[in-house]
Amino acid sequence: MTPRDAQGPADLLISGCTALVHDEHQRIDFLEDCAVVVRDGVIDALLPAAEAAGLPARERIEADGQVALPGFINCHTHTPMVTLRGIAEDLPVEEWFNDWIWPIESNLTERDVELGARLACAEMIRGGVTCFADHYFEMDAVAAVAAESGLRAHLGWAYFSSQGPQGRERSLDFALRTRGAADGRITTALAPHAPYTVDGPDLAATAELALEHGLQVHLHAAENRAQTEHSLATEGRTPIEVLERAGLLDADLLIAHGTGIAESDFAVLARATGRIAVATAPRGYLKFGWDTTPVKELADLGIPVGLATDGAASNNTLDVWEAMTLTALVQKSARRDPTWLTARQALHHATLQSAQALGLGDSIGSLAPGRRADLVLVDVSGPHTQPVHDLAATLVHSARASDVVTTIVDGQVLMRDRKLLTVDVAGTVAELAERLPALTRRSDGTRIQTYET
Amino acid sequence: MTPRDAQGPADLLISGCTALVHDEHQRIDFLEDCAVVVRDGVIDALLPAAEAAGLPARERIEADGQVALPGFINCHTHTPMVTLRGIAEDLPVEEWFNDWIWPIESNLTERDVELGARLACAEMIRGGVTCFADHYFEMDAVAAVAAESGLRAHLGWAYFSSQGPQGRERSLDFALRTRGAADGRITTALAPHAPYTVDGPDLAATAELALEHGLQVHLHAAENRAQTEHSLATEGRTPIEVLERAGLLDADLLIAHGTGIAESDFAVLARATGRIAVATAPRGYLKFGWDTTPVKELADLGIPVGLATDGAASNNTLDVWEAMTLTALVQKSARRDPTWLTARQALHHATLQSAQALGLGDSIGSLAPGRRADLVLVDVSGPHTQPVHDLAATLVHSARASDVVTTIVDGQVLMRDRKLLTVDVAGTVAELAERLPALTRRSDGTRIQTYET
Repeated sequence: MTPRDAQGPADLLISGCTALVHDEHQRIDFLEDCAVVVRDGVIDALLPAAEAAGLPARERIEADGQVALPGFINCHTHTPMVTLRGIAEDLPVEEWFNDWIWPIESNLTERDVELGARLACAEMIRGGVTCFADHYFEMDAVAAVAAESGLRAHLGWAYFSSQGPQGRERSLDFALRTRGAADGRITTALAPHAPYTVDGPDLAATAELALEHGLQVHLHAAENRAQTEHSLATEGRTPIEVLERAGLLDADLLIAHGTGIAESDFAVLARATGRIAVATAPRGYLKFGWDTTPVKELADLGIPVGLATDGAASNNTLDVWEAMTLTALVQKSARRDPTWLTARQALHHATLQSAQALGLGDSIGSLAPGRRADLVLVDVSGPHTQPVHDLAATLVHSARASDVVTTIVDGQVLMRDRKLLTVDVAGTVAELAERLPALTRRSDGTRIQTYET
Repeated sequence: MTPRDAQGPADLLISGCTALVHDEHQRIDFLEDCAVVVRDGVIDALLPAAEAAGLPARERIEADGQVALPGFINCHTHTPMVTLRGIAEDLPVEEWFNDWIWPIESNLTERDVELGARLACAEMIRGGVTCFADHYFEMDAVAAVAAESGLRAHLGWAYFSSQGPQGRERSLDFALRTRGAADGRITTALAPHAPYTVDGPDLAATAELALEHGLQVHLHAAENRAQTEHSLATEGRTPIEVLERAGLLDADLLIAHGTGIAESDFAVLARATGRIAVATAPRGYLKFGWDTTPVKELADLGIPVGLATDGAASNNTLDVWEAMTLTALVQKSARRDPTWLTARQALHHATLQSAQALGLGDSIGSLAPGRRADLVLVDVSGPHTQPVHDLAATLVHSARASDVVTTIVDGQVLMRDRKLLTVDVAGTVAELAERLPALTRRSDGTRIQTYET
């Protein structure tokens, strides 16, 4: 290693901020009057601002009075579904899938996916999201958009058993040839849709491929209580037991939702040998009238719970900041315990646990030397965030996604002072508007799947 | 009436917007490409934009692509408590009151109240709130701040029976001498704290004064289930029955919270002869782990339910837009019915029902000729609100308070393009910071009340 003063100028120097960091016990702490030094896309150092004052740098951001946080991570979404934001409202999940989403998705083209993903990236960058785990179709288009937007992405090509083995093979092919793309910003997963649309042999084959190729499996499971009851009635097993039987609990596994995880499933999860994680998207559970993810029980098992928004067709937003706030509020409400899920716990879910959920717990999710320089700067000077008695509470319960002023991934500034630098929103919205009539037509009676649980 | 063309120029002309209006059945509708003409603080006309193009006006706002909504109404808050935002987090309500809020409030000065109210007005104007119902102490300071900020306010000076008859007398004196202030923007109410801090005779005397002077009574009641159980155990009556016995259900009555309203209370409320309304502040109920307001049952009784934020010491924000979103989400969740409380129903609570809750249902809460010109302009061009399939869903589930760009009360522009025109935030925050150590001192063992339910 060259001594710092012989390395030449830093690539980026952010000075004057308060930085959210984790102590040796992973507890949330704040360093005041701090400078973040970035070289080669990595955090090189966190220094007292005074020490950094004379440091040469190619790019400088004066962030006095702002808070630097690890960028938010959207642990489960379907970005192209922003095209359907608000199209099917106030409906039970059966009608939502069968009468709206799956008929419309039979019209989907790669260009629709590209435009939707691009609009979603704009929304996420403006909301302080620096990484997203996407689970959808036509994922080459999403990978290309992620690359051009500058975001980090964890991508899986979805499949149903109704597609035959080709579905699984395409997901594997995509995962293998795409991982490491965009200078390493893209990682990949196998993406079976769910235990209710992918059968046992297909899930078992997926588990084998995951272990053989060192890939995570990202899927929906135990989305709600009704699915668990239906699975018990028809297969004699909960969805989590179905995953275990398929060998998926021996693989790296990212389970979306899990609001239907049964009491008996905790023992099953406790004996898993793979690295299991859950993504919680609390807004949609409220909207569908479901239970919420059992975060406390999962925490007791050491299973990380990352934050997510699901797709905007059900969730209406890709606002991970709101997911953090709602996780704090809904977990208190569900347990009827105002002392559970404190603001600092919510920030831990939003940072390290979200990174761990994607298998990226060593490279992102914390502001520390050696980690990728994925961070956001937040303005807490607004009247709605003043005064600050406890910065953790201010961030979780008073601040909003719209208070993010600057978003940075791998040291590249994607938004500065609320101005997007890598995505053309107006052009994307204009082209999308022309395509919406064809995309949303439901008259031909086709749908890509049927929801029957 | 002079014909319009002989009236001279309009005071304000807003052109090019989509306006949220109510049809003859109070249903939410949207008028596209619309102009709003304001004269003497009143909406003079809603016209097709083309008809308004040549109209002379002293002030013009080009609002192409923006949505005009009736200004939001915060039906129950304690504005000066923004000074304590985030100071006592993740606590049960007993500790929150007894160890933090009531000891701190024993230090309260009129200057603290003034600064807090001013900061709160800034937050509310930025969040699209044009009217607030405040229930606190030192209300002359709040009235002065409301007047200078340009906001509309419905103010009550709080009292406990522990203050003797002087508490009630001060509340009456304030209500009588302040109503109609600020060119009519200020209305007033009597403000007993709650049935658990104001005794039966005091509540009965309040009811008589309300009827005698034509004043609304604004109080907390049945805030949570535990209060109702405590009231039944100690008095043999629910809090709602205590109000009935005191004669308060024969007066105009604004009940804050009501999450502890019992099944048996609906029959009691059904026989009320006064104009009863409820204010719901759903964020705090989640945070304390309480039930939520029974909006469906109240709707079935024809009781308007307005939206509220409570004080920021418990609620962390005065964001009524969030209260609207959470009302939609939490009501679906509480009833486990995704079809209940649609986006349009949420907008009805946010507009006409909130106006009715304050007894102002004929003058604000809707964009219609003859009503006060209290409105906000909302930008829905951002990536998080595109595309728009259903504007009601976009507003309730995708847009945010931060999308309000312009806030207008009585035709006066209080914020334009996100710039506050009537409140100095930096000066207020700076002076408040100096005063916080004295305000938040809890070492002398005094408190203004004790929470015992």
